[in-house]
Amino acid sequence: MFITFEGLDFCGKSTQVELLKNYFEKNGASVKIIREPGGVKISEKIRDVLLDNKNAEMFDETELLLFSASRSQLVREKIIPFLNSGNIVISDRFHDSSIAYQGFGRGINTDFVIQLQKFAIGDAVPDLTFFIDIPIEEVLKRKSKVSVSALDRIEVSKNDFYEKVRHGYKYLVENEERFIQINGLSTIEEIHKNIIEEIKKYEGKK
Amino acid sequence: MFITFEGLDFCGKSTQVELLKNYFEKNGASVKIIREPGGVKISEKIRDVLLDNKNAEMFDETELLLFSASRSQLVREKIIPFLNSGNIVISDRFHDSSIAYQGFGRGINTDFVIQLQKFAIGDAVPDLTFFIDIPIEEVLKRKSKVSVSALDRIEVSKNDFYEKVRHGYKYLVENEERFIQINGLSTIEEIHKNIIEEIKKYEGKK
Repeated sequence: MFITFEGLDFCGKSTQVELLKNYFEKNGASVKIIREPGGVKISEKIRDVLLDNKNAEMFDETELLLFSASRSQLVREKIIPFLNSGNIVISDRFHDSSIAYQGFGRGINTDFVIQLQKFAIGDAVPDLTFFIDIPIEEVLKRKSKVSVSALDRIEVSKNDFYEKVRHGYKYLVENEERFIQINGLSTIEEIHKNIIEEIKKYEGKK
Repeated sequence: MFITFEGLDFCGKSTQVELLKNYFEKNGASVKIIREPGGVKISEKIRDVLLDNKNAEMFDETELLLFSASRSQLVREKIIPFLNSGNIVISDRFHDSSIAYQGFGRGINTDFVIQLQKFAIGDAVPDLTFFIDIPIEEVLKRKSKVSVSALDRIEVSKNDFYEKVRHGYKYLVENEERFIQINGLSTIEEIHKNIIEEIKKYEGKK
């Protein structure tokens, strides 16, 4: 089984990935956690290019293609072999992040971004994708807690970007059966419980 | 004006690029030569990933996406600004190489490869593309001259690959108006003369 987690920054994905991993392991399953970009040698090198040039003139199109190249390698070198050996694979962000952030957020043609992601992931289509939804105000509130800076002009201008990304995720929830929206304002325990219920529902359907 | 050269290895592209550059410069034009992959800082770094991992487990899909990322950056950072400042840009291989080699040659879905290349090059569609055509036997003959190794089993098995690539170029000649097929078995001088004639024809049409 391949499960991915999606959502805006600070939505609580990483905490839920850990809780779900523990849940599966308690039930005797072997679980592999994936974090993008990186994870295999070639993808790590691509990540270095992505990060080294943070302040350089990297165009959005180049960035999208580099993320996709890194993902393509990770999928074929690691995720598919993990799945084929019977592991449960959980990824903290996957191809839907490119669709939401770079397609909907940055305004790159979404039909193309979706097609590009299909090519990059090949057979590694997630069985279930949890979109942990929080409103933009909550992102900003949680962000200001972890950094010392107060909300400034840049943060405000980012709101529009976050709204577009959130809209992208909601589009995916409506159009992809594997997508499950979870209320990210619930408590950590409630969210975890919801996720377990959804997984049981999915397993019952199979 | 943006002119690209395509063809199998050893078809004589690089010689013709140089001759054409000299021709334009003699006529007072400013000419920029492009060679892929590389040419700008980010693309050089991507090239390092492509070359460093020659022997590693790089999947065809990853390679295609990396070439496309490198091209995307080169186009936006260099080719388009060069063209906008009135230069003639000549590229020794461009996006059609990905279509012929990775689409037709390696068997990656050609419709997707074509769409991916359109995305990567954006507005930098070549005005003219010269496909210098030579038969596979000629590739092998010219290759054996530059390397000491005689034609071995590997060379023979490569024939099929080269045939597919050549077929890809011929498909492009038939389907893209900007493509001009040149007989690569003619002398260097004849080929150059043909190219100049085609450029004059193109300029007359404008």
